[in-house]
Amino acid sequence: MLKPVNVGICGLGTVASGTINILLRNHSIINARAGCEIRIVQVGARRNNPKCDTSSLNVTRDIFAVADNPDVDILIELIGGTTVAKDLVLKAIANGKHVITANKALIAHHGNEIFAAAKAKGVTVAFEAAVAGGIPIIKAIREGLAANQIEWLAGIINGTGNFILTEMRDKGRAFEDVLKEAQALGYAEADPTFDVEGIDAAHKLVILASLAFGIPLEIKKVFTEGITRITPEDVTYAEELGYRIKHLGIARRTEAGIELRVHPTLIPEKRLIANVDGVMNAVVVKGDAVGPTLYYGAGAGAEPTGSSVVGDIVDVARTLTAEPEHRVPYLGFDADFVAEQTILPIDEVETAYYLRMSADDKPGVLSKVATILSDYGISIEALIQKEAREGESVVPLILLTNRVLEKRLATAIDRIEALDSISAPVMRIRMESLK
Amino acid sequence: MLKPVNVGICGLGTVASGTINILLRNHSIINARAGCEIRIVQVGARRNNPKCDTSSLNVTRDIFAVADNPDVDILIELIGGTTVAKDLVLKAIANGKHVITANKALIAHHGNEIFAAAKAKGVTVAFEAAVAGGIPIIKAIREGLAANQIEWLAGIINGTGNFILTEMRDKGRAFEDVLKEAQALGYAEADPTFDVEGIDAAHKLVILASLAFGIPLEIKKVFTEGITRITPEDVTYAEELGYRIKHLGIARRTEAGIELRVHPTLIPEKRLIANVDGVMNAVVVKGDAVGPTLYYGAGAGAEPTGSSVVGDIVDVARTLTAEPEHRVPYLGFDADFVAEQTILPIDEVETAYYLRMSADDKPGVLSKVATILSDYGISIEALIQKEAREGESVVPLILLTNRVLEKRLATAIDRIEALDSISAPVMRIRMESLK
Repeated sequence: MLKPVNVGICGLGTVASGTINILLRNHSIINARAGCEIRIVQVGARRNNPKCDTSSLNVTRDIFAVADNPDVDILIELIGGTTVAKDLVLKAIANGKHVITANKALIAHHGNEIFAAAKAKGVTVAFEAAVAGGIPIIKAIREGLAANQIEWLAGIINGTGNFILTEMRDKGRAFEDVLKEAQALGYAEADPTFDVEGIDAAHKLVILASLAFGIPLEIKKVFTEGITRITPEDVTYAEELGYRIKHLGIARRTEAGIELRVHPTLIPEKRLIANVDGVMNAVVVKGDAVGPTLYYGAGAGAEPTGSSVVGDIVDVARTLTAEPEHRVPYLGFDADFVAEQTILPIDEVETAYYLRMSADDKPGVLSKVATILSDYGISIEALIQKEAREGESVVPLILLTNRVLEKRLATAIDRIEALDSISAPVMRIRMESLK
Repeated sequence: MLKPVNVGICGLGTVASGTINILLRNHSIINARAGCEIRIVQVGARRNNPKCDTSSLNVTRDIFAVADNPDVDILIELIGGTTVAKDLVLKAIANGKHVITANKALIAHHGNEIFAAAKAKGVTVAFEAAVAGGIPIIKAIREGLAANQIEWLAGIINGTGNFILTEMRDKGRAFEDVLKEAQALGYAEADPTFDVEGIDAAHKLVILASLAFGIPLEIKKVFTEGITRITPEDVTYAEELGYRIKHLGIARRTEAGIELRVHPTLIPEKRLIANVDGVMNAVVVKGDAVGPTLYYGAGAGAEPTGSSVVGDIVDVARTLTAEPEHRVPYLGFDADFVAEQTILPIDEVETAYYLRMSADDKPGVLSKVATILSDYGISIEALIQKEAREGESVVPLILLTNRVLEKRLATAIDRIEALDSISAPVMRIRMESLK
């Protein structure tokens, strides 16, 4: 048996309460898995949480006291944010403590600096809980698929956005309407920007991409597009064409460079990930040896996220007294191997597209649109054109294109939008086959 | 950097060719992940494999020479079977070598003995490739979900059986017909018993159950029922009722004991795993903290299975020179914790049932059946009764029951089968909600 391992937990919000409750409830099985006793020696939090009984624990109101506590082997950062959390983590590392965090924004923005500091001190930084809640996706990519050149990955990695899109599809509801319900249910924050604009997903995507491709974390290079423009009509037309709309984070290695993008995406309804509904998360990872694999589970919540934090505790505890080279590297690669690669701007990305436009209900319009697309080498793979409704003089025209460079498509759309017979901007949604 | 790690590979069949091809093709990324150079120092195989270029490798026809080779740090057993493979693995362990195997039958039948020998010598035995091919399911349960009391797991862990059931559903074909095609395609062996009778799935299930519950491997206690009796009609009726039939391996912890069973199972079509088709594998694992999670990917094939073997190489290489207590235990638990628990006989298992019977087309038959079920406290949750076809005097009667002890249901069925108005045996298929 290894000697007991002492953890100090900073924060007492949702994830901390889940983590503490799991550690207290499942201590015997956790100790049997870790090969040592895991002890919570201190909790640092400004206020108590009624969902977590800390009466048996040593609670301080000074979170930095946990980073300075000589009894603490592992500091668990669950306070969130990127300012105090960063200071706290760097202080813990400076004091020679291992760090576990659930903080995706912290890792996405400051991971490179934090990992460098940790490497200099010979300590671990673990962050399974930062991506996709309870799904052990970081371990899967970093260790389980270690044999593979990862070709691409695509994930539903924001539960709020997926809840909204699922409700829009199941009930034909509008975005704003479902968002209000999600806020009432507590799925979405009062300021939903992080979720619906894809910022939260971008944080998670850069982490997954670094693990997949051995690149530093580059949050500023992610292309991000939210789901606020998606209409119930788009959801319905997609379905008619055999597709579902999901808000995906996608990272792909191409000969020209790496794509890093978060946007609404049409995917074939037959794909397993197209059937991941509500607040659940899932990530598809395609390796050159293994082919496509998928990982599914709860992407948020106290105990699912706590499950990942405690999984990290067991991992870190096991090699706490081993030499650093016996531990899994932060990003899964020997630090010397991690190097910048070209990240493609969105203009240089090639995908297929769903296009929806309002066309005058008269002969020749489709022909004009088709001619412009053809001028740019874009072919129409599928088409829906409905009859005009009683009393209306415009009809919706929906097209699926072949794969084309984004900048080429953008130029074609500029010309289509300049047509007299096309009104309103052309709606465009990227498509992926995920094969 | 750690010093180079030398592997010796025994066998040169499908999985070995995949493993060698991955190691040769992806060596730089694999070395970067392992933190050391991985070298194939010897291959032991009775004959060559045209799918694998071994011209740069040191090949011997004597596989035991690999176990005796002092340069070999890790022996990779890919010869299959449970006799020579066992001798080979035990010899390698006796010589102080770490062992990696893809051999589910070997681990299921002799794992307890092999682990005990390995523990005594302070070496690792890794077997990710033994279950569900390229899916890192062993790592997920053993490490990723270490925080959890696992409540149950259920998997499609035999690709051949899933291919057959998928074809039966998609095309209304009969079992025997699809089996012949699967054999022609090379998915099924000439003797398909291992696949279609659930023996292969039972091997994998006991491994997963040991990892989930901390119990020794007990292959003899698995209840196994094949898919040979499933008819296209059953598939169709299940679909009418909103279910799909999958051949599942199920392990569940109940207050009375642990269930270990492989059998055809009706599951709600809305579940993600119900939509896993063809030769693909998937495992749902329900933890008390994380809730339901699912892992999906290729369950067989050269490179998918090789992906898991190489993942194990990276893991083993990383802690090769560390003290044994820093390594993940064979079954994920400290050996002192692994203890027998009661395994329930199938009679003591409680599930819901799909029942199909042929009833005389005359009044009162349903009432008699319902009365018998009611006598045993069994309620009818759904029912399909079709009109008799022209010229036929019997009608199919399909019932879904509530959850009931198997032995209680069996007694009720005995009485139903004794009715004059019911002909032929009553078909029964277990059901699971997998919630």
